[in-house]
Amino acid sequence: MKSHRKELWFNVPSRRGFVNITRQVGAEVRASGVREGLVLVNAMHITASVFINDDEPGLHQDYERWLEQLAPHAPTSQYRHNDTGEDNADAHLKRQIMGREVVVAITDGALDLGPWEQIFYGEFDGRRKKRVLVKIIGE
Amino acid sequence: MKSHRKELWFNVPSRRGFVNITRQVGAEVRASGVREGLVLVNAMHITASVFINDDEPGLHQDYERWLEQLAPHAPTSQYRHNDTGEDNADAHLKRQIMGREVVVAITDGALDLGPWEQIFYGEFDGRRKKRVLVKIIGE
Amino acid sequence: MKSHRKELWFNVPSRRGFVNITRQVGAEVRASGVREGLVLVNAMHITASVFINDDEPGLHQDYERWLEQLAPHAPTSQYRHNDTGEDNADAHLKRQIMGREVVVAITDGALDLGPWEQIFYGEFDGRRKKRVLVKIIGE
Repeated sequence: MKSHRKELWFNVPSRRGFVNITRQVGAEVRASGVREGLVLVNAMHITASVFINDDEPGLHQDYERWLEQLAPHAPTSQYRHNDTGEDNADAHLKRQIMGREVVVAITDGALDLGPWEQIFYGEFDGRRKKRVLVKIIGE
Repeated sequence: MKSHRKELWFNVPSRRGFVNITRQVGAEVRASGVREGLVLVNAMHITASVFINDDEPGLHQDYERWLEQLAPHAPTSQYRHNDTGEDNADAHLKRQIMGREVVVAITDGALDLGPWEQIFYGEFDGRRKKRVLVKIIGE
Repeated sequence: MKSHRKELWFNVPSRRGFVNITRQVGAEVRASGVREGLVLVNAMHITASVFINDDEPGLHQDYERWLEQLAPHAPTSQYRHNDTGEDNADAHLKRQIMGREVVVAITDGALDLGPWEQIFYGEFDGRRKKRVLVKIIGE
């Protein structure tokens, strides 16, 4: 069994944003030399997500609006987590909706994705350096 | 290490629906010859889910009503994704609630599920052929 | 390839609660002897979750309040699942928000977690014995 590990670093300049990381994950699959296996891609921070959906700007606007409806940032005083001095409780909630991680099949040495599947880093408390873990196992 | 790959195809005749695929996934586990490992089951389309819950029709009605409350289909004009000519933005949102994939343990050559765990394909934009990927690794 | 399997049992005395299980999962990783691999941690019951987030009591209060807003327990008559005699339909919904499972990388024989990542068992219909599956594969 082979394994491969890589951290991808991001610094999203706004509080929230979506970054397509499909190409970077695919590069790690090639670097791993794994032909058949699984790749785990997870946010290492608890106010961010890794998820798979469409690379379409209108949809990303919809996600932004929808997540603000389901878990609004303001007023920050509505969250007990923010009593600790943080202002990011909403980000911990939004990340549960969008998920921490994806697991993707590796087949014939490449990401085995459907026709429109793209892997995204979802940032909900940005303006600082944060990272994603790519872990690959297989043969 | 062994690996096994199978696509399962579905054509749900309505816009939304839930299909129990536990038996089909179990058949792939047996076909793989893997005794100890993991099986990844993921929607290959971004307006559908694979999830694990109860095979109880009342609960499925509850999911349908609840998801419509959290991410209503109409009016379709409320979503910027639908400006592209699509009418399925809500399906991209519902799928995030229900999830893209499940990973299930394989033990002694079979799905290692709890007593009531059943694997479902969740369709949120049906009336066309769509597919699920089953990828198995182990020994 | 090595594999390792363990069931962790819980009896949360209230209907809902969060239990930090990071230490128990880490102990299973060490017991497995796996140096490089993946660990799957999943609720075996469909009214409970395994998720990764912060071990901060204020945040857990926020999750409790937020999940009650998104999927209220009462009135129980609003759910068709409860027509079966159950009163836990809301727990089946809450669990979809928080997720069934996490997959965590194993690197150098230990859980490969970010600085604040902690693994939780999320109970939404407690006051009885329920369990979590830990399945490890790797080398």
